[in-house]
Amino acid sequence: MADPQAVTPGPARTDARRRHDPTVRGFASDNYAGVHPEILAALALANGGHQVAYGEDVYTEHLQRVMHSHFGPTAEAFPVFNGTGANVTALQALTDRWGAVICAESAHINVDEGGAPERMAGLKLLTVPTPDGKLTPELIDRQAFGWDDEHRAMPQAVSITQNTEVGTVYTVDEIRAIVEHAHGLGMKVHLDGARIANAAASLDVPMRAFTNAVGVDVLSFGGTKNGMLAGECVVVLNPDAVSHMKHLRKMSMQLASKMRFVSVQFEALLAKDLWLRNARHSNAMAQRLAEGVRAVDGVEILHPVQANAVFARLPHHVTRRLQERFRFYFWNEAAGDVRWMCSFDTTEDDVDAFVLALKEEMAHA
Amino acid sequence: MADPQAVTPGPARTDARRRHDPTVRGFASDNYAGVHPEILAALALANGGHQVAYGEDVYTEHLQRVMHSHFGPTAEAFPVFNGTGANVTALQALTDRWGAVICAESAHINVDEGGAPERMAGLKLLTVPTPDGKLTPELIDRQAFGWDDEHRAMPQAVSITQNTEVGTVYTVDEIRAIVEHAHGLGMKVHLDGARIANAAASLDVPMRAFTNAVGVDVLSFGGTKNGMLAGECVVVLNPDAVSHMKHLRKMSMQLASKMRFVSVQFEALLAKDLWLRNARHSNAMAQRLAEGVRAVDGVEILHPVQANAVFARLPHHVTRRLQERFRFYFWNEAAGDVRWMCSFDTTEDDVDAFVLALKEEMAHA
Amino acid sequence: MADPQAVTPGPARTDARRRHDPTVRGFASDNYAGVHPEILAALALANGGHQVAYGEDVYTEHLQRVMHSHFGPTAEAFPVFNGTGANVTALQALTDRWGAVICAESAHINVDEGGAPERMAGLKLLTVPTPDGKLTPELIDRQAFGWDDEHRAMPQAVSITQNTEVGTVYTVDEIRAIVEHAHGLGMKVHLDGARIANAAASLDVPMRAFTNAVGVDVLSFGGTKNGMLAGECVVVLNPDAVSHMKHLRKMSMQLASKMRFVSVQFEALLAKDLWLRNARHSNAMAQRLAEGVRAVDGVEILHPVQANAVFARLPHHVTRRLQERFRFYFWNEAAGDVRWMCSFDTTEDDVDAFVLALKEEMAHA
Amino acid sequence: MADPQAVTPGPARTDARRRHDPTVRGFASDNYAGVHPEILAALALANGGHQVAYGEDVYTEHLQRVMHSHFGPTAEAFPVFNGTGANVTALQALTDRWGAVICAESAHINVDEGGAPERMAGLKLLTVPTPDGKLTPELIDRQAFGWDDEHRAMPQAVSITQNTEVGTVYTVDEIRAIVEHAHGLGMKVHLDGARIANAAASLDVPMRAFTNAVGVDVLSFGGTKNGMLAGECVVVLNPDAVSHMKHLRKMSMQLASKMRFVSVQFEALLAKDLWLRNARHSNAMAQRLAEGVRAVDGVEILHPVQANAVFARLPHHVTRRLQERFRFYFWNEAAGDVRWMCSFDTTEDDVDAFVLALKEEMAHA
Repeated sequence: MADPQAVTPGPARTDARRRHDPTVRGFASDNYAGVHPEILAALALANGGHQVAYGEDVYTEHLQRVMHSHFGPTAEAFPVFNGTGANVTALQALTDRWGAVICAESAHINVDEGGAPERMAGLKLLTVPTPDGKLTPELIDRQAFGWDDEHRAMPQAVSITQNTEVGTVYTVDEIRAIVEHAHGLGMKVHLDGARIANAAASLDVPMRAFTNAVGVDVLSFGGTKNGMLAGECVVVLNPDAVSHMKHLRKMSMQLASKMRFVSVQFEALLAKDLWLRNARHSNAMAQRLAEGVRAVDGVEILHPVQANAVFARLPHHVTRRLQERFRFYFWNEAAGDVRWMCSFDTTEDDVDAFVLALKEEMAHA
Repeated sequence: MADPQAVTPGPARTDARRRHDPTVRGFASDNYAGVHPEILAALALANGGHQVAYGEDVYTEHLQRVMHSHFGPTAEAFPVFNGTGANVTALQALTDRWGAVICAESAHINVDEGGAPERMAGLKLLTVPTPDGKLTPELIDRQAFGWDDEHRAMPQAVSITQNTEVGTVYTVDEIRAIVEHAHGLGMKVHLDGARIANAAASLDVPMRAFTNAVGVDVLSFGGTKNGMLAGECVVVLNPDAVSHMKHLRKMSMQLASKMRFVSVQFEALLAKDLWLRNARHSNAMAQRLAEGVRAVDGVEILHPVQANAVFARLPHHVTRRLQERFRFYFWNEAAGDVRWMCSFDTTEDDVDAFVLALKEEMAHA
Repeated sequence: MADPQAVTPGPARTDARRRHDPTVRGFASDNYAGVHPEILAALALANGGHQVAYGEDVYTEHLQRVMHSHFGPTAEAFPVFNGTGANVTALQALTDRWGAVICAESAHINVDEGGAPERMAGLKLLTVPTPDGKLTPELIDRQAFGWDDEHRAMPQAVSITQNTEVGTVYTVDEIRAIVEHAHGLGMKVHLDGARIANAAASLDVPMRAFTNAVGVDVLSFGGTKNGMLAGECVVVLNPDAVSHMKHLRKMSMQLASKMRFVSVQFEALLAKDLWLRNARHSNAMAQRLAEGVRAVDGVEILHPVQANAVFARLPHHVTRRLQERFRFYFWNEAAGDVRWMCSFDTTEDDVDAFVLALKEEMAHA
Repeated sequence: MADPQAVTPGPARTDARRRHDPTVRGFASDNYAGVHPEILAALALANGGHQVAYGEDVYTEHLQRVMHSHFGPTAEAFPVFNGTGANVTALQALTDRWGAVICAESAHINVDEGGAPERMAGLKLLTVPTPDGKLTPELIDRQAFGWDDEHRAMPQAVSITQNTEVGTVYTVDEIRAIVEHAHGLGMKVHLDGARIANAAASLDVPMRAFTNAVGVDVLSFGGTKNGMLAGECVVVLNPDAVSHMKHLRKMSMQLASKMRFVSVQFEALLAKDLWLRNARHSNAMAQRLAEGVRAVDGVEILHPVQANAVFARLPHHVTRRLQERFRFYFWNEAAGDVRWMCSFDTTEDDVDAFVLALKEEMAHA
């Protein structure tokens, strides 16, 4: 069967060096998408001439002001390369050598980062099973004990993911309760915001509402999945919670030399409303997808669709056939669970074609 | 395509969002430069549509063939984010948990990576002072012993830098001798090629001549300093020397999700001769600079000018005044040593203006 | 209330420098006990004259033969200082830099070693909840997947504890099934034998029956809890599974200089039947204790009593009062679960006095 | 008490289980020696009954008071297993994740610990060549810079060894100058006192005179080489310089369960004058040896003999023949340098016999 990447004929490969068909999209992941045109334009704008390397350029300087407009005047931005790098840098900043991090069993840091937190930073993760990817004060308490017991890795930070790995979104109050609980126990709070824009769009609040406004200490701000070429950002919201961030970033192999090109992407994303437009769009596409799927008999939607992901359960043979037509992944193959992600460039036609295909394959079943 | 050195004259900040003057350049570092226009164009070309994330895209697939054209059919390319990431990933691949790496005391891995090799990978560096940044078999022997002695960190790899941190270039024979010596002792060889293109241009040989042709096992291929936006590449030349590179890259926080945009930059650089044009140009600018400087009384050039760097010794007050006019760094402030780097976008006018300024400041002295 | 360590009057402190009462014992842990007299005598025997340091002494050499008598001619013994050191050394030997270890959530390596596996060795632990501390092939499968997926820490070893942290003992067949399953999946098997002697005594089989006879690759052999002063031993059962153990031991800070004094303790324990006498005795005391406890109304015994531990659930106020008379610990304070450990020096009178006290305190309740 | 050097004559292997000849001694290392009889007696004294494990026993409690008598009332003792463990634990306590340690190139932490500081603690060592093993403020300055530069591992501690690896002893003033210099630069000071007793005996001052009296922050106190069975001790002299020592010790795999048996050894060594008797004796034997050697033509003594080591240079064939009669090591085989160590149990007869043998072999030469 043909590669799903190459099914659509047409005028796509007009440049001989273009090796892919830019009209083909799927539902595998929001990082299968490319770069938003406004981001590409910003790269060109920042080009030319010399700028101090390693973050002392004017674009990185300006990024601080952009971040202040979102997260208040004490926020400090440390652009890095990717999400794993952002998380590991941030968590090192929030812990001592003897510290441990409480997180959901399903957290990206626990299951998707190749053991980087443990290997690169010596971090012990104290995990808690969660039905919906969300921690709560009660769930945190299952690991929040033993601070004076040297036999136990000391819980010093709680890491939550907004939106979660299963596409659910913490409410502002839920995060506030977690932060208050963690702070009350002497722990700091990290928020893995690989898809933070989608969460803000879903909640219809500013990003600060569920971060610094409720006391989150450090944020991994995700740009790549929201339309950037590459780049994430550790945003320190509580400067008293950390120290020597620039040393931690460098030793964590996350210091870009030509940082202006990371920073200007964030500026393009955040200075106006591109971040929100992109997030609202991908969320809306997920809603359209969910609505379409709900009309198909025999397909179960697994989690509340609150951001840009739809999780569903279908018969395996349907999944297999559907995967020959559109790219997407199993989430839990044994259970038959699949994940469909929408991105900033997903179109209504993409969604409708996919729902139609799903109907067809289910009808064959 | 237009010569990037032929900078378009005119009002620089035509776009209100441009925060810098693209006509200003200095001699601080080749990573102060921006992105070569052909690289930027390639990014646009690779954009649009969906591509599999994390390296299974068509551009990364094609990059393998591009690398084969330079390094032979067994080479395998693993794009990463930056030089520290490339080096630490490569050195982990060449060593066991108990391994150590012999390198020059001045090596970037020893003095400029914030301790990342030690902290992230637990690597012990066994350093040797070198007058010119070059290791030799004899210098290697100062640390190459004690393999059976568990009290000593076991030397398992030798890491050399081409061109070196002081702008000198190993000859093909010098590297061959090092590799033969290291291999004879059971050690593997890593080449930190942050400026490998400049070395090839300087030696006027293909890059393979001093890498896989003489037995280097793994290479950190530098793209950023040669005109890319961001991106380096671990190139495995000897597949038998390593294992599980993709796991090592991921856990080292060096796995780009939208990897097509790193790989296509390398394609733009390497598929034709952009890498060589850029390198020859920056080398030529360094020669022009050195010639100009030699004509100035009282300024001593410190190392053979073999690539794109000129090291010199001047009176401190001259340096200070000159730094107010052009960006560059002390290399050894106590000694009065400075480093002047040329890059792909350095122009003849830049050089001439700098030499003139040097003359003026020396005359004032 | 008086310190439980100092309740018994009598002729104990005959030497002015003796700071404790040697007649007082409790049920807190088998490492609260001292040294068996035969072990102390062995230390004196190995004293005097010079012996090569760091393991090239005649006692360590002889220990190899002693271990052969228990574990067959390919076993190789690497004495270390403590259990955490033994486990971390062994697990490093069984994994690559990118490897992970599947273990029970309750495993000592996960909950009682201060994060040493993660911090010192960069090991990711893939944990599975187990009702009785025992892994099974089915439970292992919950974490045994994704070997080709670099986003996941690669499962390379399974670590089981015999007897388990809750005092249960794997049967020979249970361990055989685990090993066959793990090996079939390309993983190696480590057995944490901090109390291996108790397990052998419980099963009434030689230690080899559930280790090398069923394919366990590396064993952490526990001596301290069975009457030694200090010392554990990494025993390599499958030499093909590991490499450079002596380097791993040294870099893990587990290499004793005067190793003869660790090795001779193991000889005293293992050359004849001291290990078995001690284990049988402490097991028997646990049985006596369990029988006594079962006769007390309102006290629930929580796990099968198969070795030297008894786990029970009592009312909190009873526990509190009982702890004023005898040392022991909560296992799960919220649930009211306590742990009572017997050791090689626990006497029948100790047990009977404790049961009597329990009866009294329950009657008060 | 009998002098341990007055070895009881007679048939050595009276006990069939004794595997070595207790009358044979050499000059290889002070850790080839066994245990001083007073230390062995102390182990027996601490035996019997139950004591809280992991350091909450009465012997460890009392050790605090013993250490106070030597190092003042703020000293806090953390017994550990060995010197590498002591050093790595101490240096972690003095540095942040991003910290580095300045030390002599010849320091034990750099050349004899199998890379444990780098591997286990991620510590970068910034080394300085020293002719006599001693750092000075000037030598420290060669690495003491760049605190604000994240590209450089940040120097946060200086580690010195007293007495040094080549048997020289820092004067009180030399250490004071180092500490004042380091503190003035914001760095802390660690003293590796693997042979601290020999240094105090050599200087004829209390140990506090060159440690807390001059501001050393943390000390690795060596017991094993001075007659203990096993055990070293991290002594925190400046409590403000460290934090969470017990967590660092545990996670560094240095927490003894039956700690009473480590602590009581230190008590036996330090409560009265055993430490000083042993040190004076081994120092005196080194002086006797040096005097004897000086009378032999053709043998050059290489360093001032200030403690219990004699370094000399002899013809290789003499060394080889002499090594067939007495155990000792090359220090630098290429140069013909050897090291002769005296220990607490070296006798005058041992020294005289060795000098005689040296004379004989030199005469043969």
